[in-house]
Amino acid sequence: MLTIAGIGPGGKETMTEEVAAALAEADCIVGYTVYAELLRKLYPEKEYYTTPMTQETERCRWAVEQAERGRSVVLVCSGDSGVYGLAGLVCELTEGTAPLRILPGVTAALSGAAVLGAPLCHDFAVVSLSDRLTPWETITRRLLAAAAGDFVICLYNPASKGRPEHLRRACSLLLEEGHMERGRICGAVRNIGREGQEAQIMTLGQLADYPADMFTTVYIGSSTTRQIGAYMVTPRGYRISQESASGR
Amino acid sequence: MLTIAGIGPGGKETMTEEVAAALAEADCIVGYTVYAELLRKLYPEKEYYTTPMTQETERCRWAVEQAERGRSVVLVCSGDSGVYGLAGLVCELTEGTAPLRILPGVTAALSGAAVLGAPLCHDFAVVSLSDRLTPWETITRRLLAAAAGDFVICLYNPASKGRPEHLRRACSLLLEEGHMERGRICGAVRNIGREGQEAQIMTLGQLADYPADMFTTVYIGSSTTRQIGAYMVTPRGYRISQESASGR
Repeated sequence: MLTIAGIGPGGKETMTEEVAAALAEADCIVGYTVYAELLRKLYPEKEYYTTPMTQETERCRWAVEQAERGRSVVLVCSGDSGVYGLAGLVCELTEGTAPLRILPGVTAALSGAAVLGAPLCHDFAVVSLSDRLTPWETITRRLLAAAAGDFVICLYNPASKGRPEHLRRACSLLLEEGHMERGRICGAVRNIGREGQEAQIMTLGQLADYPADMFTTVYIGSSTTRQIGAYMVTPRGYRISQESASGR
Repeated sequence: MLTIAGIGPGGKETMTEEVAAALAEADCIVGYTVYAELLRKLYPEKEYYTTPMTQETERCRWAVEQAERGRSVVLVCSGDSGVYGLAGLVCELTEGTAPLRILPGVTAALSGAAVLGAPLCHDFAVVSLSDRLTPWETITRRLLAAAAGDFVICLYNPASKGRPEHLRRACSLLLEEGHMERGRICGAVRNIGREGQEAQIMTLGQLADYPADMFTTVYIGSSTTRQIGAYMVTPRGYRISQESASGR
């Protein structure tokens, strides 16, 4: 049986109980090197098969083959098994014929939002800035559409060593063509739920210069997003009478 | 201390360990009646404070007051604490001054996607069709923008007793103005992770007639979304050579 599991940000405390149980019962755990190393500390007795980034297809194929041999295999994804995860690739490789167990997990959009406060309390769009598998023109089109819809925008893969300028390019696009003001409230969280976690609330103008890396998740507020104390908040729209709010 | 916790779809197996621990340690659990009843089976010894829908502000205010008196209070939200959850309202009510612990959870977009396969493996937008707190014009604008950006669209609150026609109206809008074809691959999941779970993959034309209710989450595919066997999949874009795919 092949299980594809979203492990959340990385620690056991943010993993769901069904994912923890699947890992505890697995013969073999398959994953990207960085996340497999996190799991090795929790489940040291397991067999691991890891591949670096860009070798996702090989990783999935190996997991499918081992499961066909009757082994209990858990293919792990950071965050969720679906959101930019490998559940789709496994469905494609097996042409939908293999029995799969797909277990969701807390994706970075949610875990990062909880660190910042509540930026995703209203409609939002999730966009990856990685152009490894998606043309930059498609990414551009989606950013402008999300801005036109006044969505909160959550960015995955805002930058990496090979593409350090992507976040700046996205911010410039939104400022120039997306009709957003420089003071738009934004936020960024790095190393969510792991050692070295950092969070910052800033403006869109400042975000263009923010040194994001591949472990950073970025939030660009909608027109209603505000900073309230130390929190980034997109109100859902509940009515709060003035006296009751100021009474706290 | 006030904790705002996303409990996932409802069962203990899809709750994160930190949320389960917070509930086990709580003096008092506060929530919407339906979800509080699910928790009462798991934690029968706790004190519960529940309010029906439309009384979210009262519910949050009570939780804040109890926490100010030194009690350990967990305000629970189905799915995630942020996504259409109460984390934002609590930040507003306390004006960002109260110490809050915000714990994320598996929102319905993710848990429903895992049931259908992998519809959210590429960029997506999340839109609530409830016009209780948002004007229908804003919802319309967002649906059209998401269609223009070729996002997968995940719909929350697609219908309820008071607004049974919202999903049909949204589908008509997308067919007429959003330039989507009737054969666009869509999916719906009802009672995710609970008794009576049902999932269906269908076309956008069929979705207009789907009897959604307030416990249904709906997925409208992007132009690349496909049905593969029993799965709804939005490919990320990995290259798969033909012989290796057909070999499975």
